[in-house]
Amino acid sequence: MTTTKFLLPESGIPETWVNLMPDLPSPPPPPLHPGTKQPIGPDDLAPLFPMGLILQEVSTEPDIPIPDEVRDALALWRPTPLIRARRLERFLDTPAHIYFRYEGVSPAGSHKPNTTVAQAYYNKQEGIRKLVTETGAGQWGSSLAIACQLFGLECEVFMVGVSYDQKPYRRAMMETWGGTVHRSPSALTSAGRSQAEHVSGSLGIAISEAVEVAASSPDTHYALGSVLNHVCLHQTVIGSEALAQLELAGEYPDVVIGCVGGGSNFAGIAYPLIRKSLREGLGTRFLAAEPAACPTLSRGVYGYDFGDTVGLTPLLPMYTLGHDFVPPPVHAGGLRYHGDAPSLCALAKSGIVEPRTVAQTAAFAAAVAFARTEAIVPGPEPAHALQVVFEEAAAAREAGDSRVILFNLSGHGHFDMAAYAAYAAGELTDLTFSDADVEAALAKLPDAPSLT
Amino acid sequence: MTTTKFLLPESGIPETWVNLMPDLPSPPPPPLHPGTKQPIGPDDLAPLFPMGLILQEVSTEPDIPIPDEVRDALALWRPTPLIRARRLERFLDTPAHIYFRYEGVSPAGSHKPNTTVAQAYYNKQEGIRKLVTETGAGQWGSSLAIACQLFGLECEVFMVGVSYDQKPYRRAMMETWGGTVHRSPSALTSAGRSQAEHVSGSLGIAISEAVEVAASSPDTHYALGSVLNHVCLHQTVIGSEALAQLELAGEYPDVVIGCVGGGSNFAGIAYPLIRKSLREGLGTRFLAAEPAACPTLSRGVYGYDFGDTVGLTPLLPMYTLGHDFVPPPVHAGGLRYHGDAPSLCALAKSGIVEPRTVAQTAAFAAAVAFARTEAIVPGPEPAHALQVVFEEAAAAREAGDSRVILFNLSGHGHFDMAAYAAYAAGELTDLTFSDADVEAALAKLPDAPSLT
Repeated sequence: MTTTKFLLPESGIPETWVNLMPDLPSPPPPPLHPGTKQPIGPDDLAPLFPMGLILQEVSTEPDIPIPDEVRDALALWRPTPLIRARRLERFLDTPAHIYFRYEGVSPAGSHKPNTTVAQAYYNKQEGIRKLVTETGAGQWGSSLAIACQLFGLECEVFMVGVSYDQKPYRRAMMETWGGTVHRSPSALTSAGRSQAEHVSGSLGIAISEAVEVAASSPDTHYALGSVLNHVCLHQTVIGSEALAQLELAGEYPDVVIGCVGGGSNFAGIAYPLIRKSLREGLGTRFLAAEPAACPTLSRGVYGYDFGDTVGLTPLLPMYTLGHDFVPPPVHAGGLRYHGDAPSLCALAKSGIVEPRTVAQTAAFAAAVAFARTEAIVPGPEPAHALQVVFEEAAAAREAGDSRVILFNLSGHGHFDMAAYAAYAAGELTDLTFSDADVEAALAKLPDAPSLT
Repeated sequence: MTTTKFLLPESGIPETWVNLMPDLPSPPPPPLHPGTKQPIGPDDLAPLFPMGLILQEVSTEPDIPIPDEVRDALALWRPTPLIRARRLERFLDTPAHIYFRYEGVSPAGSHKPNTTVAQAYYNKQEGIRKLVTETGAGQWGSSLAIACQLFGLECEVFMVGVSYDQKPYRRAMMETWGGTVHRSPSALTSAGRSQAEHVSGSLGIAISEAVEVAASSPDTHYALGSVLNHVCLHQTVIGSEALAQLELAGEYPDVVIGCVGGGSNFAGIAYPLIRKSLREGLGTRFLAAEPAACPTLSRGVYGYDFGDTVGLTPLLPMYTLGHDFVPPPVHAGGLRYHGDAPSLCALAKSGIVEPRTVAQTAAFAAAVAFARTEAIVPGPEPAHALQVVFEEAAAAREAGDSRVILFNLSGHGHFDMAAYAAYAAGELTDLTFSDADVEAALAKLPDAPSLT
């Protein structure tokens, strides 16, 4: 029997999160208040987040202890496995060694609960009673509902209207985990009432509703699923477990690959290995897979922009396609974001992380081949990472080297079979944006100091 | 941090399957040929199954080696975890220690692939080109498609018409794994053509179609998902892993609980522990959870009956509600079977296994409480086992003992959220059968030697 799977015992759940900030050669500039254009301070964030998370957001400590209660919650599904994809290697006829981390074993089927349990913990510690958030198709809302339930918080989710109507089972899942789900736009908020004509809703409106509810009640906070430093921080359990498992495997990656929507699953697998690479001068390559329909790092400009589409948030230093840009409706909904985590953008700007763009039909083709060799049906988001893995495997074959590839399979595709059915029926096309739309969105970047 | 999870390394995948037959105090009588009423021999089964599986079906060896190729395939998701449900214990305010094995981490989300990879292997070994089967909602068909893909076989699935129409994403999943899916009744078989008026189809018709295709082609075989000895055998990896993990936990169960449809997931967790209990005189209790709507072990008669609803199979010695009995359409589709595995029925008859009946609303109430404490959403089938766990936990509280409970969480409920939504909306009722229907079905038992 050949060894394909590297499992840690429960005690292998990391005791600290990896904060890459102090190791960055060019740390990102600070977020700015949209009115004053001055760096925001903890007080600016306090209406939405607990101080425990705000301090993580600005921390310069390289290692931040994970509270025991959070490790206990993570233990419900962690440590997750590292698997060598030997069948895929044979299928691709590559000398490369391909390893993946599989986050689909979590109760929600993705990496998202890694941060929700931490966010719920710190909010509970500070006496918060309820967390509010938005959700598109429901993955993030489900993950927050689980965490709130585990830590005794209420959970309220504003779900984009069209998904609420078309995906009743996602709603049933959030409700099974005790969450309260509102169709957005709702009549519960002034943001919702003012957008009542947008019957199908949007993530932007849902965010506005959630933030309004959180900001208007002292015992209610908001929860965000990506982009911010503390969210990326919480995901680093993925990469830290990977480092321990790679030691068991006796190999170390030459290239690390993840998909990028807001950046948190990429940060999760990559940041612990980036730190090691920077400290030890390893020269590992780090590839960020973006959808061709929303190529933030590849095509965006580096500047200050709003984190949301409505323009409510602080100004974040990032590559952006413009907060006004609406990506085409590709099936990897989790990758349709106009910006990226400021930490990841700083890494891309300094050349430590290289972006790669992937067309969605290529991503699905790779995903089907993966399902037929390694048995797991990937979510459409990590399918993009997988396509970059295929390109690296082909390059290894051409170069005749046995490079070691590590990628993050951030979730399964059990909830995404409509997209697979469309792909199989030949109905998926490689939607792309129009240059004019990006130019128009970039023309609306907020007035802020230049970063170039 | 408290220990909640017991993981084995990949080398912990069992090297042998546990064949309980030689240890049974009262082994089941042999299956009979429906025409001659004589015990069937290997040749009777050869048109449908490879000799490797037929020999397992009649083996008297207590331990049967698992081929390396099968262990390699199992390693794609095994060993699966043993988890102590500490949060559930607190919720139930019980002194009992509750452990569960979680099979939902498999690529199909249930225990079914444990046997499909073995079945595909032995068929491939004997030069078979294609496996054919039936499927209801798609769990079994998906699991077989995965295994065929891993071992280079074609896979053809006859899917019950109403599910084919209502659950296109299950079909998409089978197709993603390379299976060919036919709506049943189809025009491809004489069985299908003769039932063309039954537009919505039935599992009975789908079985007939699959068996017809398999029997009519020498390079094509049939695959069955439960009931038979070799299927129960393949599932014993669950219980064997449990034994090793319980040693890590330093505890041994007083009671073992599983749900029963055809019996294979129950056999999987229980048979290795039943053998240990019989050999060492441990007195462990084994509880089989049946739906109140289809209480085969609790209410059926012990006699020879057909394994299928149409009357094509050999006569099996089992508790049966009559092969003509149509259980009400409860949401735990995997538990709606008129009989049970002969080995399990023999264990029930000798009192080693005790049946318990569970109403579906009670099962869903337990499942929701489990999802809110342990985060995993159970499938409707293991939700029935869970309700029996709740009853044992309450009994432990009343008796003031800290009994150790082990149950099998045979799959997640991600594909069953429609049932959860119906439960949440108060639309689920406790469907039960009419006594008259059972009496009528029992009156149609085939002419065969009495077993009482």
